Amino acid sequence: MKKKVLKFGGTSVGSIQRILHAAKIIKKEHDNGAKIIVVVSAMAGTTNNLIEHSKSISKKFNKRDLDVLLTSGEQVTSALISGALNDLGVKAKTWMNWQIPIITEGDHTNSRIINMSVDKINNYLSEGGVAVIPGFQGISKSGEITSIGRGGSDATAVAIAKIFQTESCEIYTDVDGVHSSDPNKIPLAKKIDKISYEEMLELSSLGAKVMQSSAVQAAMMNDIPIHVKSTFTNRKGTEIISEDNIDYRKAVTGVAYSKDDAKITLLGVADKPGVAADVFEPLSKNQINVDMVIQNISADGKKTDLTFTTKRQDSKNAVSLIESNKKIEYEKTHINDKVSKVSIVGAGMVTTPGITFKMFRSLAEEKINILAISTSEIKISVIIDENLTIDAVKKLHKTFNLD
Amino acid sequence: MKKKVLKFGGTSVGSIQRILHAAKIIKKEHDNGAKIIVVVSAMAGTTNNLIEHSKSISKKFNKRDLDVLLTSGEQVTSALISGALNDLGVKAKTWMNWQIPIITEGDHTNSRIINMSVDKINNYLSEGGVAVIPGFQGISKSGEITSIGRGGSDATAVAIAKIFQTESCEIYTDVDGVHSSDPNKIPLAKKIDKISYEEMLELSSLGAKVMQSSAVQAAMMNDIPIHVKSTFTNRKGTEIISEDNIDYRKAVTGVAYSKDDAKITLLGVADKPGVAADVFEPLSKNQINVDMVIQNISADGKKTDLTFTTKRQDSKNAVSLIESNKKIEYEKTHINDKVSKVSIVGAGMVTTPGITFKMFRSLAEEKINILAISTSEIKISVIIDENLTIDAVKKLHKTFNLD
Repeated sequence: MKKKVLKFGGTSVGSIQRILHAAKIIKKEHDNGAKIIVVVSAMAGTTNNLIEHSKSISKKFNKRDLDVLLTSGEQVTSALISGALNDLGVKAKTWMNWQIPIITEGDHTNSRIINMSVDKINNYLSEGGVAVIPGFQGISKSGEITSIGRGGSDATAVAIAKIFQTESCEIYTDVDGVHSSDPNKIPLAKKIDKISYEEMLELSSLGAKVMQSSAVQAAMMNDIPIHVKSTFTNRKGTEIISEDNIDYRKAVTGVAYSKDDAKITLLGVADKPGVAADVFEPLSKNQINVDMVIQNISADGKKTDLTFTTKRQDSKNAVSLIESNKKIEYEKTHINDKVSKVSIVGAGMVTTPGITFKMFRSLAEEKINILAISTSEIKISVIIDENLTIDAVKKLHKTFNLD
Repeated sequence: MKKKVLKFGGTSVGSIQRILHAAKIIKKEHDNGAKIIVVVSAMAGTTNNLIEHSKSISKKFNKRDLDVLLTSGEQVTSALISGALNDLGVKAKTWMNWQIPIITEGDHTNSRIINMSVDKINNYLSEGGVAVIPGFQGISKSGEITSIGRGGSDATAVAIAKIFQTESCEIYTDVDGVHSSDPNKIPLAKKIDKISYEEMLELSSLGAKVMQSSAVQAAMMNDIPIHVKSTFTNRKGTEIISEDNIDYRKAVTGVAYSKDDAKITLLGVADKPGVAADVFEPLSKNQINVDMVIQNISADGKKTDLTFTTKRQDSKNAVSLIESNKKIEYEKTHINDKVSKVSIVGAGMVTTPGITFKMFRSLAEEKINILAISTSEIKISVIIDENLTIDAVKKLHKTFNLD
């Protein structure tokens, strides 16, 4: 009999009606003979409300208490789902993380699942029961309540799929799969049937909210096939699988964009070893993530320009950290907060020549100026004027035949 | 250094502002040098909301899942109180019941605390820390989440006071103590400074909502002094203590009433052994509590009338159970749903002659007809017309010099 993980995200359990609906989906799979482990998120809105509460109490609410606070959300959903299943005549039981236990390591609010006991749950599955487990949380070796970061229920689902060696891991969400671009903004965006872990990672890190990156990464490392599908339709969703199992006819799989970037340029930086390190060290120490970095070769061997992007909210802080660091020699700084990042992603890109040229020409045709460029094996990203984002995405979507 | 339990009820932690206020009360006690264990209820409204959720999912939501669901409420408050204390610079830590552990026995939603480990918390108190514990819950010997019934946070507080041998157990609530009658309805009701466990039990069972009965009972059995006080004023509250420590100047301590009673009379019941058992057995089997029972001696030795009271919501069900029991011989049944129970309570009553007479004469002066009477060592209750309740309470309040 196949073992399955079914994970339901916050919007999929966001109301009593939706919980009842999710329970019916679980019952159907159970009636079809699968052994099921259900992983649930907190009801949509709950986690944000609890975070608001904590912020109202303290701007620096301590992380240990925050974990105790936030993990209550999934406890509620687990109990409601289990209750709904029992009401439908399906034998079901909730297991809190400390009851299993699910062991984590790492800091509060940012732990990783490292181990899990399987016997109790496997016995229960053998007896025909459905196990319902709150996602996003665990306990540390010393018995403290821990959480594994926002969106961590996906990571719980993948960890359970791995440890219980389930046949599949199904992520129920509020969209019917991964799309070639944001379907809310690009009406011609199409659902992708199959996508590789790597492409999914690039799309996630670029703002596709379908699945949490670290969970995709864990699935990739353990070759666990993921099936992302909508809780609200019966349509086939997107399979996230190994590149080897995908027949690439198109070089480009999707177009993604993010609109909360800022571009910072240091003009006239001394061109000598260690400068980049001096610039980025204080940013790293202050948890400011640097995304793209571009440094031109200096014409005279003495001075160069250094450009990088950060999240918009961090840009002012980044510049003041740099300006207060007397070690760095430069002429002046320049911030452009009105930029966005547009990327094309595709595992087939590496074997298809001319993709970069095609992308740049296509943007040029729309008179879109490229402010910075960064490339990887399966992704090309450009920084452009924020106001031109949707135009650029639409154009690229058409250029690469994704419509 | 004295050890104290401070328990905060639902309204005392019903908003972020109130949680911050409760944290300040705790800090003050901590700064005064007490070793403090805090017990918290769920934020006012939370438990009812969760119960509504469960009812929307299933009319017979299973009790195991209900315990998992409801206990999340106190987890939230514990985390917020601990976070607020840490923000005020007070070393504080939440301990979930499974982390301590607090062991219970009995059924889901209706368990009793039977044991608790003290070492971890005592060590923490010795280090100057404040331990914050969710009330109302525990874990069974087999590691299941259990709850100890509505209002169970009081029981948790008393159990902790007992097991940790604390000097006092302070119950912070939204009223400033126990009153001689309901202060919302009887403006002349006065706060009682000291009351015996027995009197408090009678008042609680008669509808005074200040403290949960089983918690008072546990305090009585272990002679733990309780101090009920308001979270919102600095006034001295009510001490609930052993009768031996109270100087009774007044025979009557308080007047209580309940308005959700119904009086059921079976007219012309055969006056033979076993009739009462036949009447009450099916009620007991159907969880219908019978409060007062009055049976007159029959005039002719053959037929008598049997009167009893139940909660109003149970009255129709009670009568239909009786009517469907062919074993019972009677002429007809009569329900009066428009009655209330008014009681005077006082440990001094037993040593003061004439209290009963004084009560009846006083009601007669107000032309209030007594429909049934029941007495105990420290209480006299009468059933009267519902519309006359407040008149009766006011009159008795005055008669026994409680104004």
